Amino acid sequence: MNEMKHLSLLTDFYQLTMMNGYLQNDMTDEIVVFDLFFRENPCHSGYTIIAGIEQVIDYIENLKFHEDELSYLASLGTFKEDFIDALRNFKFSGTIYGVAEGTVMFPHEPILRVKGTCFETQLIETALLNVMNHQSLIATKAARIVTAAKGDPVFEFGLRRAQGPDAGVYGARAAVIGGCSSTSNVLAGMKFDLTVVGTQAHSWIQKFPTELESFRAYAKAYPDDCLLLVDTYNTLEAGVPNAITVFNELRTQGHKPKGIRIDSGDIAYLSKQARRMLDEAGFPDAIIVASSDLDEDTISALKDQKAEINGWGVGTNLITSKNCPALGGVYKLSAAEEDGELVPKIKISNNPEKITNPGFKNVYRIYDEKTGKAQADLIALDDEVIDEDQPLTIFHPVYTWKQTTFTDYRLKKLLQPIFIDGELVYQRQTTQQIKDKVSKELDSLWPEYRRLTRPQIYKVDLSEALWQLKQDLVNENKVFPKK
Amino acid sequence: MNEMKHLSLLTDFYQLTMMNGYLQNDMTDEIVVFDLFFRENPCHSGYTIIAGIEQVIDYIENLKFHEDELSYLASLGTFKEDFIDALRNFKFSGTIYGVAEGTVMFPHEPILRVKGTCFETQLIETALLNVMNHQSLIATKAARIVTAAKGDPVFEFGLRRAQGPDAGVYGARAAVIGGCSSTSNVLAGMKFDLTVVGTQAHSWIQKFPTELESFRAYAKAYPDDCLLLVDTYNTLEAGVPNAITVFNELRTQGHKPKGIRIDSGDIAYLSKQARRMLDEAGFPDAIIVASSDLDEDTISALKDQKAEINGWGVGTNLITSKNCPALGGVYKLSAAEEDGELVPKIKISNNPEKITNPGFKNVYRIYDEKTGKAQADLIALDDEVIDEDQPLTIFHPVYTWKQTTFTDYRLKKLLQPIFIDGELVYQRQTTQQIKDKVSKELDSLWPEYRRLTRPQIYKVDLSEALWQLKQDLVNENKVFPKK
Repeated sequence: MNEMKHLSLLTDFYQLTMMNGYLQNDMTDEIVVFDLFFRENPCHSGYTIIAGIEQVIDYIENLKFHEDELSYLASLGTFKEDFIDALRNFKFSGTIYGVAEGTVMFPHEPILRVKGTCFETQLIETALLNVMNHQSLIATKAARIVTAAKGDPVFEFGLRRAQGPDAGVYGARAAVIGGCSSTSNVLAGMKFDLTVVGTQAHSWIQKFPTELESFRAYAKAYPDDCLLLVDTYNTLEAGVPNAITVFNELRTQGHKPKGIRIDSGDIAYLSKQARRMLDEAGFPDAIIVASSDLDEDTISALKDQKAEINGWGVGTNLITSKNCPALGGVYKLSAAEEDGELVPKIKISNNPEKITNPGFKNVYRIYDEKTGKAQADLIALDDEVIDEDQPLTIFHPVYTWKQTTFTDYRLKKLLQPIFIDGELVYQRQTTQQIKDKVSKELDSLWPEYRRLTRPQIYKVDLSEALWQLKQDLVNENKVFPKK
Repeated sequence: MNEMKHLSLLTDFYQLTMMNGYLQNDMTDEIVVFDLFFRENPCHSGYTIIAGIEQVIDYIENLKFHEDELSYLASLGTFKEDFIDALRNFKFSGTIYGVAEGTVMFPHEPILRVKGTCFETQLIETALLNVMNHQSLIATKAARIVTAAKGDPVFEFGLRRAQGPDAGVYGARAAVIGGCSSTSNVLAGMKFDLTVVGTQAHSWIQKFPTELESFRAYAKAYPDDCLLLVDTYNTLEAGVPNAITVFNELRTQGHKPKGIRIDSGDIAYLSKQARRMLDEAGFPDAIIVASSDLDEDTISALKDQKAEINGWGVGTNLITSKNCPALGGVYKLSAAEEDGELVPKIKISNNPEKITNPGFKNVYRIYDEKTGKAQADLIALDDEVIDEDQPLTIFHPVYTWKQTTFTDYRLKKLLQPIFIDGELVYQRQTTQQIKDKVSKELDSLWPEYRRLTRPQIYKVDLSEALWQLKQDLVNENKVFPKK
């Protein structure tokens, strides 16, 4: 299977040229800190669900260079033997802090904080971004679709349109973490212990001389799990009546039919008609599943029109996050050790959104003691001490006169150790545990932040010390551009 | 590495429930034919470049079920031991015809034609679609971006934003097939013998006390391959002047500097200013590379404004095909053997675009003898004989009065054997050979079909026999809906 193994070369070539550059300048062991964060929630969402931590762990734990990989690198003509030797002896020994998988996070907050040598921190950038960007994107998209379905199960059906095998497999994992009840993807099901579902395609119906015969053959094989695809010829004229015929036969034999699936046409109209026909035939418990180019907007619109759908199969729009197929996570230098001390680093930009938050940081979530709801997040320097017995005032990082003071609150420190000096200290979770965590995380947000359309923006502020540090570094760089 | 191996479970669960359904109905060995095709070119393109055939071959050649997979399937409670045994003994023995990798194809044309048992043809549907949809999408997107770059090299830089590791690795392959000169993806470089490129990131610049020191350190490590990222602090005030300082030092030492990279700001303005500064400093050969949220539209606009760019690094928009992240390939039953004879099958729909072309077919490309250019394609029944010495008249499948007659033409049959009775007969190609083929294929199209915006629609017609068969089956199904 497609494990996150032997992916040591899953990196951008410039990571290797920089690593070799550090080696040629005797700097490989200098300690630096990188933050992995994103600047915008995907898909117009008010939040982002973080997924992929377990695969980052797999990747880091398997990080070593095989001889065929070293020979390949040597063959490129860019590197000398000293660099190949350094890779041969490579072992990740850095310290990674990160949020727990399934945490709900917001723009500009560190998701992962990597401290280690120039050499090792640079090598892993690309794979970390690849994994976290992809799975967090799909988990968030899934959460939106599940929100639209208002309690109906959502089935992930997108493998055939996914961007390659991994996109299907890890995408299915992320979709279930984000709230889908199950997937059609068998490999993902086995790998991550997900519920797999599926019945029959149009080809099954076409294979038989008549639709009725195809339904009977399916019912014969699955008398107690008989869900029939009714739109191959004519949903209301043929499909539903034929399904009812077979359901009656099943009932006579003592079986309870499961329901029907509609894969084309106007789902609102067809489902309401089909519901009436099934009810009149005495099958009020038979479910109706829809699967036809669905996303959160279409599901919301169909729900609004009272479509009689009990479950939603979602393919392309979910597995590719079609209207927003990339989360723009980045990995930026925030500090570097100089003479044994961590010195904050900043990346300046003409675009204020792109100026990084400098220094060695952590993120606090501020919960209201009474409601248990998350009120705001605070990015602070790691060594700051916040006395929870005192009121806490946060202020907007740009419009500093916008202030909020919390009195009855508790804090949760979001970045926790994953690797310490190269040793894994994170407690791995099952997919179900992560899915449950996501559910609790979403519950901790006021509904205003979860609204599908134009959600309220969740407050993420900087501590005063961090804000001041940032101002100082910006001014220093502005007045004395570093030539 | 991430081989297309052990992917036997990379399938939708309904493929397995159908396979078991056929087994329970004693139909597993009945012969059927499926066509894999798409209904629309991706990304507003006038054509689609087919990629992924080599990975389909890898997948098919490695198709067998391991005991852990069988145990997993048995554990689901859906299947009995007879089905698990059938999978244990599974071997693909079907016949697959397809186009050569790198062929330019058009909507509704069969790309792959799979003939085999119900059992085996159903199993492979999902993986075939997953692989072909993804790689054909990215190859086509790459061809568009390369077209916009008008001869400048395009570098694939998207791994960090790709939808998982495979999307990065197979996406890089497809991008190079589609015309990119190289990739930043080292794993893809090793796996598919692609040229890899890369220099340094902003983090390298930030790591040093000053930009100038960071440039000098890079020049020390790469004196003969020194391309410097100039936008970390201020492109024109600091970056380019500092680069010129280092280039002068390199020249004094007898080295020829390579150039600069601009990753933010207005590329048109900055590149023209930087070009002037480099020229005035005596470095007219120093190249300028751009890499900042580029796609075919932005590159066209920058070219239009005479941006002084010699190479284009393209990331997210290419590797995810951001404005169109899925190719909607489908796999539809076109015939089934009844009493030893192949009977054409059709899928009816209210949407005429979705009515399938029935029967056992092939595709011919009609080339003009004088110009060598492709004039139109003809989908015909496989047993039709076309006498190339006679004029050939094709007609529009809907507006049948629209006719074209070719006199001085030659035909090329596009579907050729890949597997015959389970044996591989396709000659594998290197990535470079496939890339060369794509280049020739694109040359064979008149520029009107290659235009980036609103290209002319390439003619794809049905032979008269196929057209008649389709009409008959449509009418038969319309008048006597198959209950």
